[in-house]
Amino acid sequence: MTAAPAASTDVFFDFLCPYAWRGIELAAVLRAQGHTFRLRHFSLVQGNHADNTAAGGPVWWLTDQPLGEGSPYQQNSLAAFLAAHAAAQQGEELHWAFTLALYRAVHEHKKTLDEAAIAEAAQTAGLDLEAFTAARTDEAGLRASLRAELAEAAEIGVFGTPTFVLPDGSAAYYRFENLTRDPDTALVWWNLYGEVLRSGAGIATIKRAKNRPAQKA
Amino acid sequence: MTAAPAASTDVFFDFLCPYAWRGIELAAVLRAQGHTFRLRHFSLVQGNHADNTAAGGPVWWLTDQPLGEGSPYQQNSLAAFLAAHAAAQQGEELHWAFTLALYRAVHEHKKTLDEAAIAEAAQTAGLDLEAFTAARTDEAGLRASLRAELAEAAEIGVFGTPTFVLPDGSAAYYRFENLTRDPDTALVWWNLYGEVLRSGAGIATIKRAKNRPAQKA
Repeated sequence: MTAAPAASTDVFFDFLCPYAWRGIELAAVLRAQGHTFRLRHFSLVQGNHADNTAAGGPVWWLTDQPLGEGSPYQQNSLAAFLAAHAAAQQGEELHWAFTLALYRAVHEHKKTLDEAAIAEAAQTAGLDLEAFTAARTDEAGLRASLRAELAEAAEIGVFGTPTFVLPDGSAAYYRFENLTRDPDTALVWWNLYGEVLRSGAGIATIKRAKNRPAQKA
Repeated sequence: MTAAPAASTDVFFDFLCPYAWRGIELAAVLRAQGHTFRLRHFSLVQGNHADNTAAGGPVWWLTDQPLGEGSPYQQNSLAAFLAAHAAAQQGEELHWAFTLALYRAVHEHKKTLDEAAIAEAAQTAGLDLEAFTAARTDEAGLRASLRAELAEAAEIGVFGTPTFVLPDGSAAYYRFENLTRDPDTALVWWNLYGEVLRSGAGIATIKRAKNRPAQKA
């Protein structure tokens, strides 16, 4: 493992989240244009857990839960995160390919986020399947690297996905309804987000009124 | 009363809120450049009331509460709203002048939002004080016009202040840390908000992570 370049943007996501899917697709398009993004996991099940409402950091950690316990969301997201950490051992490009393949399986092709989807994503991404299977058996090691990311997210105060952490340290949840794989469009949407974060207004929040939702294209 | 021009933007605010104060100052600067804004009240005490958490509209209305009952926030905001509706009877310009004077008394000069602040704001704004006092005695009429605004806010799904409702019907909470009275700066900050709402991304939310707040200038 090497440290992230100084100019990289971290993107926190959960495979459960369709907004994070669109955020990851956006980041993937921008990567192809030379931008640097680092994939980081944030657990919505952990973030929304009733035991974690108090200030002062999480008490209930997804990484402390056995596989196969809890709600389907909990089980599936934990398995997917651990699989992604196994995929990451095959390098950054294959990590991205696996992440995109699993996201598309679930949010584009509407499959369940289960073992079959993970296996198919591994194949679609072109992982070395033998090495992937072997890496997945080191559950303790995968849990440890996932835990480090969840702790980092908690320290930043991530509360939803996708959340992008810019090289200058600013960080915000960026929720949008539409998907783009067009390079020019992706750049416009990304630059607008950056403008909001860098504005001299010191913008904390822009959020639609409850009964006036954003329009799907 | 005349209907608002088709191209006007409604700004929902509560005198309790420092973010709404900066939003009203922004709108005031833009008005001087020919933009049209309409002042609308939204009650944070009502919006955050425990009885109003369920979907389906408010059960507890600020306008149903006697003056002098409830928390200081409740008492002071109700009195200020009713006073503003009395001021509004002297025309749009004096309504704005009163609103700004009362906001500045509380959030710039750190006075309590009480009867003394209301009286001083009326004077600073240049209201006809005799007419203002007379208008305030029609409490039922003032409550009725306040109620209409609160009902409108509930229908839109306003949850915080300031919330701007653009002529195209889109509406969002716009929270920023810094105050400007500079025309060029105000226009930049306003246009950025509009760009976010009009973006093809269909942006629903941009919100800073909890431990990475926006910077005060």
